[in-house]
Amino acid sequence: MNIDMIRAAAGRLAGHARHTPLLCSPFLDEIAGRRILVKPECLQHTGSFKFRGGWAALSALDPAKRERGVIAFSSGNHAQGVAHAARLHGVPAVIVMPSDAPALKIANTRALGAEVVLYDRATESREAIGDRLAAERGLTLIRPYDEPQVIAGQGTCGLEIASDARLCGIEKANVLVCCGGGGLTSGVALACEADHPGLTVRPVEPQGFDDVKRSLETGTIQTNEQRIGSICDAIVTPAPGELTFPIMARLCGPGLAVSEDDCLRAMGVAFQRLKLVAEPGGAAALAAALFHGDQLSGDTVIAIITGGNVDAAMFSKALETLS
Amino acid sequence: MNIDMIRAAAGRLAGHARHTPLLCSPFLDEIAGRRILVKPECLQHTGSFKFRGGWAALSALDPAKRERGVIAFSSGNHAQGVAHAARLHGVPAVIVMPSDAPALKIANTRALGAEVVLYDRATESREAIGDRLAAERGLTLIRPYDEPQVIAGQGTCGLEIASDARLCGIEKANVLVCCGGGGLTSGVALACEADHPGLTVRPVEPQGFDDVKRSLETGTIQTNEQRIGSICDAIVTPAPGELTFPIMARLCGPGLAVSEDDCLRAMGVAFQRLKLVAEPGGAAALAAALFHGDQLSGDTVIAIITGGNVDAAMFSKALETLS
Repeated sequence: MNIDMIRAAAGRLAGHARHTPLLCSPFLDEIAGRRILVKPECLQHTGSFKFRGGWAALSALDPAKRERGVIAFSSGNHAQGVAHAARLHGVPAVIVMPSDAPALKIANTRALGAEVVLYDRATESREAIGDRLAAERGLTLIRPYDEPQVIAGQGTCGLEIASDARLCGIEKANVLVCCGGGGLTSGVALACEADHPGLTVRPVEPQGFDDVKRSLETGTIQTNEQRIGSICDAIVTPAPGELTFPIMARLCGPGLAVSEDDCLRAMGVAFQRLKLVAEPGGAAALAAALFHGDQLSGDTVIAIITGGNVDAAMFSKALETLS
Repeated sequence: MNIDMIRAAAGRLAGHARHTPLLCSPFLDEIAGRRILVKPECLQHTGSFKFRGGWAALSALDPAKRERGVIAFSSGNHAQGVAHAARLHGVPAVIVMPSDAPALKIANTRALGAEVVLYDRATESREAIGDRLAAERGLTLIRPYDEPQVIAGQGTCGLEIASDARLCGIEKANVLVCCGGGGLTSGVALACEADHPGLTVRPVEPQGFDDVKRSLETGTIQTNEQRIGSICDAIVTPAPGELTFPIMARLCGPGLAVSEDDCLRAMGVAFQRLKLVAEPGGAAALAAALFHGDQLSGDTVIAIITGGNVDAAMFSKALETLS
């Protein structure tokens, strides 16, 4: 895993992924007491940065292998990113989802052209189903984060940050990244190391699911006791990845943990001041920038809004924080 | 009023206004049965395209005149655009607002550094107050649309559309513009005439407030019977402007009219599929693109979301259209 892979992925993504801007608002700066720049990956295709990794992985495959199709396990943003990237490549995608996943997510994934295979969480193993389908059809598994080409794809977000931060004249800043398994965090960190070492990448997680923060503190991979039950489901993973953790340990930290209420309030601010829709997990970094400034350093912070795939009921809860 | 003024305004806005992208989603295309590209001016500074006109007008003033400050009548997006542009120029802005304007709008305008002067709609004339303040302090009035430099500023949005549409390989398209007094519509039309004549600009208004549509049909300026009572307040004006109407009559049309319910549903689609916050009047063009395709021609439509300054209560109504 190295910067050349990220640059190569950027070449393959050019004209396909969106180069998202760095947005600002005087109202955010006032809340935070410092300058905040927001990278809205919610505006990326399929509503999250995951399209970058999906496209990077698909486009890196040998054409004959790609032709046979890809498979992913996900009920969330990775599923949509892979499904859309596969459709644009004109190859089949199979997404293995739990049968109790929200109907809307299943419908969206199907609408993006993927074949959805449902499994029963209680009685079936998604890995067994995936292995069988992959063997039968010659599908290639695309892991959500512990996969070099996926990390390379997410890293293109970091190349954009590094380059745009230079254009803004920023010499030093904390870059806050909503962090699950660490694919985006490690990719962005590698990009910043190469192109703008004045940027320090710091993972942000939900309180109670701060495996990366604790792993960085102890220097060894820590796991979460809980694996479900957070509204920030998009960034809840059992533990940092085998590939991503060493990169994060070398380049990132310290981590930050924010409350669910912080995330909802940050979603409200993004609605009111940036006109952006963030999902709870996607607003964690902005929440840290706005409400945990005592743990940040420097006069400028860059926060990635990693995704905006949230339903109306949850978004209404965020709107309630404004009244 | 000519294209050279728009190009000059673009030069002055470079590095200050945002060049907003053209966004797309397969889900929008499916609803509309054609390709839809969305220009999200809700992401412009202060949450609407009005910052362009405010900046263009401020930056065109003679420095000695500018130094004394500017004045505007508005309780909405024009107020915020002028206030922010004035602050960034380091000059005073006075905004004359009705004393019954929503407290949040007054607070926001003040937070952007403007002096807010309140007047009683029933007993006072805002023009008289404005004239007195302008005379006393040497302030320059910045009109919301019937003002050449304001039209030039809004026209920069059209230069971006023309250039980005070419990059996308679009040869012909309807460009739908949420239309009040016609500053944006006429500016965009002049820009497209010069840089991409394959683009036809068509104003979109709320039903019952379709003065521009009727004016284009009759060839003479028509007025609205009602002047208040629309949730699309941002684009409700008494009649097209004296400067803007001849431009629209030469270059634009036919106009379209959409219902308030169409606008709320379009806001819901923008939330769900584009992760954008649109205000009702700002969603009128998208509503026409999505739900009135029978009145459109060609396989591609470009719709400008002109603003996103909406409160949580109104946005909740839009979210209800999704269930």
